[in-house]
Amino acid sequence: MSLQINPVKFRRVALLGVGLIGGSLVRALRQVGAVGDVVGYGRGRDNLEHALDLGVIDSIADSVAEAVTNADLIVVSTPLGAIEDIFRAMVGHIAENAVITDVGSVKGAVVDSAVAAFGLVPTNFIPAHPIAGTEQSGAAASFAELYQNRRVILTPLADSDLQAVKTVTEMWELVGAEVVEMEVEHHDEVLAATSHLPHLLAYALVDSLARDESHQEIFRYAAGGFRDFSRIASSSPVMWRDISMANRDALLHKLSVFREELEQIEEFIRAENGVELENIFVRAKQARDEHYKK
Amino acid sequence: MSLQINPVKFRRVALLGVGLIGGSLVRALRQVGAVGDVVGYGRGRDNLEHALDLGVIDSIADSVAEAVTNADLIVVSTPLGAIEDIFRAMVGHIAENAVITDVGSVKGAVVDSAVAAFGLVPTNFIPAHPIAGTEQSGAAASFAELYQNRRVILTPLADSDLQAVKTVTEMWELVGAEVVEMEVEHHDEVLAATSHLPHLLAYALVDSLARDESHQEIFRYAAGGFRDFSRIASSSPVMWRDISMANRDALLHKLSVFREELEQIEEFIRAENGVELENIFVRAKQARDEHYKK
Repeated sequence: MSLQINPVKFRRVALLGVGLIGGSLVRALRQVGAVGDVVGYGRGRDNLEHALDLGVIDSIADSVAEAVTNADLIVVSTPLGAIEDIFRAMVGHIAENAVITDVGSVKGAVVDSAVAAFGLVPTNFIPAHPIAGTEQSGAAASFAELYQNRRVILTPLADSDLQAVKTVTEMWELVGAEVVEMEVEHHDEVLAATSHLPHLLAYALVDSLARDESHQEIFRYAAGGFRDFSRIASSSPVMWRDISMANRDALLHKLSVFREELEQIEEFIRAENGVELENIFVRAKQARDEHYKK
Repeated sequence: MSLQINPVKFRRVALLGVGLIGGSLVRALRQVGAVGDVVGYGRGRDNLEHALDLGVIDSIADSVAEAVTNADLIVVSTPLGAIEDIFRAMVGHIAENAVITDVGSVKGAVVDSAVAAFGLVPTNFIPAHPIAGTEQSGAAASFAELYQNRRVILTPLADSDLQAVKTVTEMWELVGAEVVEMEVEHHDEVLAATSHLPHLLAYALVDSLARDESHQEIFRYAAGGFRDFSRIASSSPVMWRDISMANRDALLHKLSVFREELEQIEEFIRAENGVELENIFVRAKQARDEHYKK
């Protein structure tokens, strides 16, 4: 029995893509009594049935059209690569009062998908990105507490419906998140730096080691630092393939800045220039320690 | 009051470099009743006095010679760059029955330092490397449990004294570690891959972001993945400067392999080759998940 401290905000939620991110959102909304029915749609039948068994969703829709019909909240939480098709399949089935949002990690690509599918960005579609997640994926990995004290970035457009922005903001606040707003392009640059590039580096490192003949032994002698560093290489390959392609330009730019830095470090090691090497390490340590205060 | 379940193994320990690694070792040896007196020597007076207050060491020596005189166990746990000078200062002061060991992360460099200082590697010097640590440093960060269930790699040489190898092995087993033996050069290659390269990547990433104009904002929107990934960039700059220089050749090799992998990923993103990109991510995820079983 949940404490109904908030009135039900959404009578019927269409959850398109029932994974860690979407599943955690509806679990949390349910916990605060903010949803009636949750209709799930997705490609993996086993995952959907598991979500149903776990009570993450109340029913399974056989099509996007069926899921969104009569929904007052539509949440698109598939990998980025699937969003455009999902949008296309919605056309003509969205209720007039519905609010549409998503959780995609690259907002420019989501906005482009909306334009491609709808001809323009619907004013009741508010792009959003919760800065939260784990290296797990699927409905079974979802949990109601995922968004507590996390930030969610909304990237509304100039003609976004203000009431819809307010609704999406309140929805995220209900599940414990802090909501901020940002321009689409700026969001994508910031996330390229702090999230997309680190994922690429972790994947690249683990794959380059795994290709080594003695990789079994290499992993055996890895310490805690490596475990932490490489954790994000356990993330969903499909999701990160889509993110890498969708944020191509910003990511390629950050990659080239990083490669220059790495080449400089390499040059200092080759030249046995300990002074400059230490300068870089000191700057990095200061920046990190300053941000993550003890 | 500690349970004296083991006889005191070492009457007098000379701890040269009283930081996280050395401090944790003597704390753990003390906890199992395996040490009498611990004499500390180091460059930072405040750190030494703090170690004395905390009971990590029993007294402070004013010189290496004073510290090692009459010691039956000599542990060198300074940053790598200081080891050769420490070795030189020991000459003529080492008791005949003493066992000497170290905790350096690059064994080739330590062996070279021994040859430079002593003219050859003393048969009673057994190079060792505990695969343990945190991003903290200094005596205050040391704790007795650091080595429990961790691996320690010994790299004895062909003419190492077998009794000394046995003593160092038992010492590490007393504090809860599992001891393995490896060739010097092989150790340095394995550690370049799993420890030294990841530290360089973390320092490079954090510094490249910190140099960005909007770095305050960038860090603000960093999520848990970034926090884990960048943790090792908080490690001691001096220690990692020394390691990078001391393991130069193996590290430059691993760096070039990594750069090739990163360039390939970059090329796949540029060419929007999602299939190949996903292949790399899948391989990396499989390798990591296989090693760190859920």
